[in-house]
Amino acid sequence: MAEEKGFSFQLEQQAGKARAGRMVTRRGVVETPVFMPVGTRGTVKAMTTPELRQVGTSILLGNTYHLHLRPGHELVEQLGGLHRFMNWSGPILTDSGGFQVFSLGKLRKIKEDGVTFRSHIDGAACYLSPESAVAIQESLGSDIMMQLDECPPYPAEREYVANSMQLSLRWAARCKEARTAKGGALFGIVQGGMYEDLRLASAEGLMDIGFDGYAIGGLSVGEPKVLMNQVLSYLPARLPENAPRYLMGVGTPEDLVTAVAAGVDMFDCVMPTRNARNGQLFTHTGKINIKQARYRQDDGPLDAQCGCETCAHYSRAYVHHLFRNGEILGHRLMTLHNLAYYHHLMATMRQAILEQRFEEFAREFFASYPSSGE
Amino acid sequence: MAEEKGFSFQLEQQAGKARAGRMVTRRGVVETPVFMPVGTRGTVKAMTTPELRQVGTSILLGNTYHLHLRPGHELVEQLGGLHRFMNWSGPILTDSGGFQVFSLGKLRKIKEDGVTFRSHIDGAACYLSPESAVAIQESLGSDIMMQLDECPPYPAEREYVANSMQLSLRWAARCKEARTAKGGALFGIVQGGMYEDLRLASAEGLMDIGFDGYAIGGLSVGEPKVLMNQVLSYLPARLPENAPRYLMGVGTPEDLVTAVAAGVDMFDCVMPTRNARNGQLFTHTGKINIKQARYRQDDGPLDAQCGCETCAHYSRAYVHHLFRNGEILGHRLMTLHNLAYYHHLMATMRQAILEQRFEEFAREFFASYPSSGE
Repeated sequence: MAEEKGFSFQLEQQAGKARAGRMVTRRGVVETPVFMPVGTRGTVKAMTTPELRQVGTSILLGNTYHLHLRPGHELVEQLGGLHRFMNWSGPILTDSGGFQVFSLGKLRKIKEDGVTFRSHIDGAACYLSPESAVAIQESLGSDIMMQLDECPPYPAEREYVANSMQLSLRWAARCKEARTAKGGALFGIVQGGMYEDLRLASAEGLMDIGFDGYAIGGLSVGEPKVLMNQVLSYLPARLPENAPRYLMGVGTPEDLVTAVAAGVDMFDCVMPTRNARNGQLFTHTGKINIKQARYRQDDGPLDAQCGCETCAHYSRAYVHHLFRNGEILGHRLMTLHNLAYYHHLMATMRQAILEQRFEEFAREFFASYPSSGE
Repeated sequence: MAEEKGFSFQLEQQAGKARAGRMVTRRGVVETPVFMPVGTRGTVKAMTTPELRQVGTSILLGNTYHLHLRPGHELVEQLGGLHRFMNWSGPILTDSGGFQVFSLGKLRKIKEDGVTFRSHIDGAACYLSPESAVAIQESLGSDIMMQLDECPPYPAEREYVANSMQLSLRWAARCKEARTAKGGALFGIVQGGMYEDLRLASAEGLMDIGFDGYAIGGLSVGEPKVLMNQVLSYLPARLPENAPRYLMGVGTPEDLVTAVAAGVDMFDCVMPTRNARNGQLFTHTGKINIKQARYRQDDGPLDAQCGCETCAHYSRAYVHHLFRNGEILGHRLMTLHNLAYYHHLMATMRQAILEQRFEEFAREFFASYPSSGE
């Protein structure tokens, strides 16, 4: 077991439960609350890393499972690590690969020691243990590693969730033990489904082991939004004040505001990038889908309140035209805008927290952002 | 009939038949010899216009046929023209739409007045005449318009080619007559297939009418390379010295060097952009295909002698990985490199002409660039 010396989190300001902080990693400082774009296969889809910097990205998420299968983490390590491979010098948080493995359903088998699964690419037999999950993340050069955990589906029986949460706790301890001196920071993941007592037991167990940061897993897995918000209503505030809190795989702009209000500091989600490729754009007045015929002759920008390159130089009519013709540039311009929107939202929240007017911001946000019904 | 006042071409230097020139358009100066990337549907595929500027693009080609069908040239005009639509303030040369129409085969019917055809998108009946071809190009805001011509296939009987060439000449005169004061420059197109006397008659006919520039059409249509080179051996030098000469739809790096040596000033081709999307890259030591397994672990740049952003920041192994996974970023990085290669080749030729050492350059180029067998 090695300590990550370079990592720290400093709480700068609190407004209600909402927090503004400063997370120091071995590859630079991240101001929180922060949104992390998802770079599944060593690329945030359609974007270059200088473009990410330009729209406000300060930290990326890398998917261990995908890189483990292709091109292989050994090759990435041999080529100088994930940062050099993808031309990104800032911090990278990696997931453990567990979430993707558990999504494989019948293709995987969970035991105490670890999980066996078959590659979704070629069916090859693979094995992931807490120790190998850490070793793979270390070989990629991850700055923030995630423990291997089991993410139970929703809905799930209490007994299943309780046993699974205990397994994840044992795996958490093994991950911490497995970390070597070359590893980055290590976060534990709170599980326990929608059961408050299990969630709190999970959080206590992780805090006993001690991690650099604490994630909330097992949400945004198909449960009604009200259940997620219920977990957020009590859980973040029970996690250590001087460690970052990371809500995994979330979410919509509304989710981000709700979760920041509940005391969460970090987020990742494929939504801004994936939805962009389907023509869905986030704007200050709600979501639009650019493929709709109403935008065919619309000379206005995607979002009149946005300062991104797409909104500065291109019309809705042009992006509509590109999208209808399947042009790569359409995917680019829309992804750029959506990420700019997300990062701008986070920066706006941070500023509101620093200025002690977060509650006012949140009220205005929900008043002007039409409910998506999600 | 209106004259284009803003257009001129000045021959700066000649080295053998090779020419360095300065073409002034109403949207800026173009140094020749020049390569024009193809922007089929209002976008050079995968690229933004600032990126094009960065790799050395000074003039683009826009495809009239595609824009006519989608989103429609009326809409483009209503939105402020093609330049504003696609965020490009430099010059745009538009084709007449004829080449695409003639590629439709059975879907089109040629008469003296014009050509009727069915849209390849929805089968709708369309009609293109010399007058409407000019009107459409003017409505797009083209800076250099091309006459409507018929491009005969290869091989074609002499009688067919002769009649077709005469029709193209009559259409050329009608195009010049149709041009209005808002139109850009207008180029005639030399046809005549592989028949030298017909080529020269076409050139004479066009010069009698008088155009701002002269294009060579009907090459790179499937004929053996030796036949194209034969046409180049006599034709460009017979065109006016003080007008630009444009070889349409050509070609490989070897073709560009051969044609510049023969006195051609302008080129367009989908090759650098289309081939990039198939993984084929042009380098200073010949072509490579990034999908080959040998590049999987190759930590070197695509082209060690290239200064583009792709070669500066990414390895062959990374681009190989992106390509194998169908990542948009792979298309981007490869397209950027291929265009940088093409523009760098043109700039190198221009410099060699200005310094009276073009012959030496060409000898070295063909010695170091492996024959592609194309």
